[in-house]
Amino acid sequence: MKKTLIAALLASVTLTAVAEVKPFQATEYRRGVFKAVKWQFGPMADMMKGKKEFSAAEFVQRADNLAALSKMPLEGFVPNSYARGTRALPGIEQDWETFTSLMTDFERNTEALASAAASGDKGQIKPAFIQVAKTCKSCHDKFKD
Amino acid sequence: MKKTLIAALLASVTLTAVAEVKPFQATEYRRGVFKAVKWQFGPMADMMKGKKEFSAAEFVQRADNLAALSKMPLEGFVPNSYARGTRALPGIEQDWETFTSLMTDFERNTEALASAAASGDKGQIKPAFIQVAKTCKSCHDKFKD
Repeated sequence: MKKTLIAALLASVTLTAVAEVKPFQATEYRRGVFKAVKWQFGPMADMMKGKKEFSAAEFVQRADNLAALSKMPLEGFVPNSYARGTRALPGIEQDWETFTSLMTDFERNTEALASAAASGDKGQIKPAFIQVAKTCKSCHDKFKD
Repeated sequence: MKKTLIAALLASVTLTAVAEVKPFQATEYRRGVFKAVKWQFGPMADMMKGKKEFSAAEFVQRADNLAALSKMPLEGFVPNSYARGTRALPGIEQDWETFTSLMTDFERNTEALASAAASGDKGQIKPAFIQVAKTCKSCHDKFKD
């Protein structure tokens, strides 16, 4: 009985903690992070395609920014945050394991891109960049409307 | 004459480069970054105020995120991006030197907070946190509606 009471108290504390984050705030947060991701990614893609002159310094800075950003969005995917103002699909909640695994790929592959960028070797940068682009796509295909 | 021609060509190239970024995209980008800033800052403030239990690991992660984010918004403050969808005041353009100096303070002080957080010493963390909060306020007071 005592154990049950403690469990109930803990559960209520957890619920309170979760309730502190309003779903729409979480949606706005993760959308903000992804806007920043897109902003950083765009000029890197243009440099890779030769649409924009390659600048090693800019590429390094953007790759570092992208790696830092990749660590942020996951906590914005909270319960009940798929109903409005988002293109994230509710399948994220239903297949949380796959989703978190893809988000881990995103972190790992942007980190690898930042390392490749720091090397200054285009032979390393290009495949690392393609890997990041593929990682974005694999998650969008499955979990973005 | 030749020099003037080259200067004119360079100027036109610069204008083209600037024109590539649509003002509203830049506004959306910097707003996204600041949404992420607020999201990271909130739980740190709650921990400092004792409203949320202090977690050294969480504080370090959020301080690192904040330091990374602090490097990002400046490039979103482009010409003609103060008319809609923003609370940033056009005074930013008129007093660019003060604005960039405050943004440099933001970078430096969040970096100092990340170092203090890594030390795990609350005696260092608290003043570093207050310094960051003051830096935000000093810029908002002057440049945010």
